Amino acid sequence: MGEIRLIEIKEEILTDNRKSADDLRSALKAQNVFLLNLMSSPGSGKTSLILKTIEQLKDRFRIGVLEADIDSMVDAEKIAKAGVPSVQLRTGGFCHLDAGMVKKGLEAFDLSSLDLIIIENVGNLVCPAEFDTGAMMNAMILSVPEGDDKPLKYPLMFTVSDVLLINKVDYLSLSDFNMKACYERARTLNPRIVIFETSSKTGAGIKAWANWLAEEVKRSGITAR
Amino acid sequence: MGEIRLIEIKEEILTDNRKSADDLRSALKAQNVFLLNLMSSPGSGKTSLILKTIEQLKDRFRIGVLEADIDSMVDAEKIAKAGVPSVQLRTGGFCHLDAGMVKKGLEAFDLSSLDLIIIENVGNLVCPAEFDTGAMMNAMILSVPEGDDKPLKYPLMFTVSDVLLINKVDYLSLSDFNMKACYERARTLNPRIVIFETSSKTGAGIKAWANWLAEEVKRSGITAR
Repeated sequence: MGEIRLIEIKEEILTDNRKSADDLRSALKAQNVFLLNLMSSPGSGKTSLILKTIEQLKDRFRIGVLEADIDSMVDAEKIAKAGVPSVQLRTGGFCHLDAGMVKKGLEAFDLSSLDLIIIENVGNLVCPAEFDTGAMMNAMILSVPEGDDKPLKYPLMFTVSDVLLINKVDYLSLSDFNMKACYERARTLNPRIVIFETSSKTGAGIKAWANWLAEEVKRSGITAR
Repeated sequence: MGEIRLIEIKEEILTDNRKSADDLRSALKAQNVFLLNLMSSPGSGKTSLILKTIEQLKDRFRIGVLEADIDSMVDAEKIAKAGVPSVQLRTGGFCHLDAGMVKKGLEAFDLSSLDLIIIENVGNLVCPAEFDTGAMMNAMILSVPEGDDKPLKYPLMFTVSDVLLINKVDYLSLSDFNMKACYERARTLNPRIVIFETSSKTGAGIKAWANWLAEEVKRSGITAR
């Protein structure tokens, strides 16, 4: 028999990434920048929600957006029209961002002129949940058309998220989405998760979410302009 | 309008990886070890082909296998039964190996006791083609049941491979696989690709492939025991 050795390469990679993420988080804190990581499936409304959040918070914070969701410039152009600087990371099919990629993206900003940077992560409920980006807060969107069973299918995403935005609630009347079941499933995985019900179309819940985020940014010690 | 910056994160990652791969290749050459990277779809017969290759070459080279195809130990155990040392990389769902992962895997071998190490890469025709592992040679398997159109669908894999093993030729009588079309399609993408038709079941083509590989290893300057 030949000898067999087993190496847990995934754990090693995640451990290396966690170290880089911690370093990045400390560096950002020292530079007075709050980094928010927004994750979801494709098509759940990340870009629209970011635009609505910018509308609410642009007079309170100097905001930037790190765009990684798709390879085209479309999302970055929408963000730029809202008057905030954006960096488009062309990931070329990678399924997630890691702390090293986020660091490279952030180097393209003038960090001294920003208080809050929002990462629009790759549209995927699996891999992004595994990689700490260096953000101070993880937010996720679950849109009503995706269904209330998603916490059962993608538990890690709900476990690592500080806040869940149940988005596109304007679809509720056409859907059998069970809001109570969704809350229960999410809170079974993560008892401390904060939940907002939102719609970028009707504006429902947007102010509540944006005000809560503003408080969290301040509570973290970031001093806005 | 906010400012938009574009960052080609994928190119940066591939460039960093290429540098690590070149360093690894030089280090292995200095240590008199030939590294072969074997790629294919899942189920095309990588493990069986490696076992047949070991049978042919075990008296000519001291062989090791770096196993990354699946998370279980099954493949590594089959290899160990053939009497050669193996390292099982648990990738936990990663779609490819990069040079850094291969380097970590190789650290678990006693390189001074080996002449030839075969990487069984993750079963995937897309991502592994993009990442230089540090190997001296890329080999790929296309099995007859997968179809002769694969060079059209996965061109990069055929472009980066030095040798193509058209495997499971024992299925040809039951298949409409067009061997001539497959050769033409592969050679249009990569005129220098060397092609063998093999079957681990019947043994067809195995000796020709193994003898060719042995010559290539010697030609590269690796001196066997």
